[in-house]
Amino acid sequence: MKRRKFITAAAGGVAASALAAPAIAQAPTVRWRITTSWPKSLDTIYGSVELIAKRVAGLTEGKFEIRVFAAGEIVPGLQVLDAVQNRTVEAGHSYSAFYFGKRPAYAFDGGLAFGLNTRQTNAWMYYGGGLELVREVFKKDGVITLPCGSVGVQMGGFYKKEINTVDDLKGLKMRIGGLGGRILAKLGAIPQQIPPGDLYPALERGTIDAAEFIGPHDDEKLGLHKVTKYYYTPGWWEGSAQNSMLVNLAAWEALPPAFKEAFEVACNEQGLLAVAKYDVVNPPALNRLAASGLQIKQFPRPVLDAAYQAAFELFDELAAQDADFKKIYTAWKAFLEESNLWFRVAEFSLDSYRLSKPLPK
Amino acid sequence: MKRRKFITAAAGGVAASALAAPAIAQAPTVRWRITTSWPKSLDTIYGSVELIAKRVAGLTEGKFEIRVFAAGEIVPGLQVLDAVQNRTVEAGHSYSAFYFGKRPAYAFDGGLAFGLNTRQTNAWMYYGGGLELVREVFKKDGVITLPCGSVGVQMGGFYKKEINTVDDLKGLKMRIGGLGGRILAKLGAIPQQIPPGDLYPALERGTIDAAEFIGPHDDEKLGLHKVTKYYYTPGWWEGSAQNSMLVNLAAWEALPPAFKEAFEVACNEQGLLAVAKYDVVNPPALNRLAASGLQIKQFPRPVLDAAYQAAFELFDELAAQDADFKKIYTAWKAFLEESNLWFRVAEFSLDSYRLSKPLPK
Repeated sequence: MKRRKFITAAAGGVAASALAAPAIAQAPTVRWRITTSWPKSLDTIYGSVELIAKRVAGLTEGKFEIRVFAAGEIVPGLQVLDAVQNRTVEAGHSYSAFYFGKRPAYAFDGGLAFGLNTRQTNAWMYYGGGLELVREVFKKDGVITLPCGSVGVQMGGFYKKEINTVDDLKGLKMRIGGLGGRILAKLGAIPQQIPPGDLYPALERGTIDAAEFIGPHDDEKLGLHKVTKYYYTPGWWEGSAQNSMLVNLAAWEALPPAFKEAFEVACNEQGLLAVAKYDVVNPPALNRLAASGLQIKQFPRPVLDAAYQAAFELFDELAAQDADFKKIYTAWKAFLEESNLWFRVAEFSLDSYRLSKPLPK
Repeated sequence: MKRRKFITAAAGGVAASALAAPAIAQAPTVRWRITTSWPKSLDTIYGSVELIAKRVAGLTEGKFEIRVFAAGEIVPGLQVLDAVQNRTVEAGHSYSAFYFGKRPAYAFDGGLAFGLNTRQTNAWMYYGGGLELVREVFKKDGVITLPCGSVGVQMGGFYKKEINTVDDLKGLKMRIGGLGGRILAKLGAIPQQIPPGDLYPALERGTIDAAEFIGPHDDEKLGLHKVTKYYYTPGWWEGSAQNSMLVNLAAWEALPPAFKEAFEVACNEQGLLAVAKYDVVNPPALNRLAASGLQIKQFPRPVLDAAYQAAFELFDELAAQDADFKKIYTAWKAFLEESNLWFRVAEFSLDSYRLSKPLPK
């Protein structure tokens, strides 16, 4: 649509073409490749990276050309950070908590269990000192991170059996990665790493008992509701799942200033738009899943309490082991505490009232 | 900061100056004036418009020059729409619900009582059809609107006496504008229009009994906590207060495509950043207000119930009187209903759990 607008306006407006022509004719071109952790079927997340490429092209009159690649086209989805660090590509779009094994502090660039929600994450990142803190860590690997889209709170996944007590988690073979898996392991579950495309047969055959992926819009495509009975909420393992654009630091520093601004502003824009799109496509998908017979259930409070305690125990353990984690955790927790106070008072106060009411006919 | 980065990089980097020079040398310059509804003392909102001007300058290598004006410098704060329509200025930053008297449907570009929260508003505007609907109305006045920053849920204002029942609203002389005032009038209150600078003496002398302005960060500067006892939450008169950039349609259409994109993306960026800034400055301000002895109180549920009913009655009345309002209200309400379902299930489910818990030490 942007592209069409561009062409129409350039063809139609005399002033426009007079202005646009000189810059296009003279400025040299920069070409970047962005690899991603996403298959193209994740239209919302993968699509947000395509929108960034389009926006940057529009802002630079086509002189900053970006090509976007799905997981596996250049490197596998979980090797994005390495590919950026090695400058196999100039940049990669990913979820920083995937790289928690490399440096635990990378989790703060993604999202933590029971942590900052989407709006709180934006506040912390841009004005609360969060971005400076996580960038200090990425710099050690020659990478700069830019916040670049959010998924919001995800669902808690598909289950063959009900989760009524903490005991129901014991021995539960569940597909869940990263820190969420580490927390569930503390409660007796057996976290599994399985690619999304293999989840349907694994659940059908009973190789696993449960699987979490993202939210209704993405989950529905995997068809997991056909081989499970229960769809739990909330996905407490991230208060917000922020995606990031990881950029090779040398490539970043070589960019002309206006191109840096174009790239940065396009990422910031997706911080607004990517979750807005999810918030439009998730509700009808959730309705369809519920209509299919899948039961939407809430984790019982004692289960959440056990997970809450295990989560903060894990954070304390990681802080004791890793200086970067400790430094950021201290700042993050102080911000979370003050921010929660404010959200309790205003935003949550109104949301909890109005969401308790049916709309008048 | 952007400006400094720009200069440093252009002076220091050979590649950068080689690239930047031709466009700067050849492209003609566009100069716009943006008037606003805000005094400069509203550093967060007024500041967001200054950030837009800086961002556009950075993206266009200084060729799209924007000057920002406070309320009263060119036209008074509530005449922004007129000034844009008449092309006294090319654009104005304001809150569209201010112009509710001109066209009731403009309220949907700002915020409605018990309506969409900030994230839901972004979803509706960008991917739920909302922006197209409000633009149809603005087009009648030769204006195009761009979403451009949000305040989030505001506080419910300062009160000399407690509000324990709906009867306590009867005869209450309260500073509150727009649709919120119309709803409170249905409950017996007497809404007053008073400029922010006059609120302190009006409350001190007892000319009015209560006043709402924005949230803790902005409210604190007015000093109203010194002449009242109670600070109520939530500001139910807007589920989200979205600010807008109103642009003269002819001026917009004359912009070169890359400049249009620069302007649009800078506004979208403020949709993310303006509320992020508020979410950082409001919590400490709320703490200071509470420490000053001001009592933070929640409106009792029966008072909210009466306001909720009165709000939707007013919307129905407006829909019966105005075709544009009716058309948008129908779409808005359907979106709100489906979106609330989704927010109840995921985002609110996690927020309500984690905000009920103290953080572990």
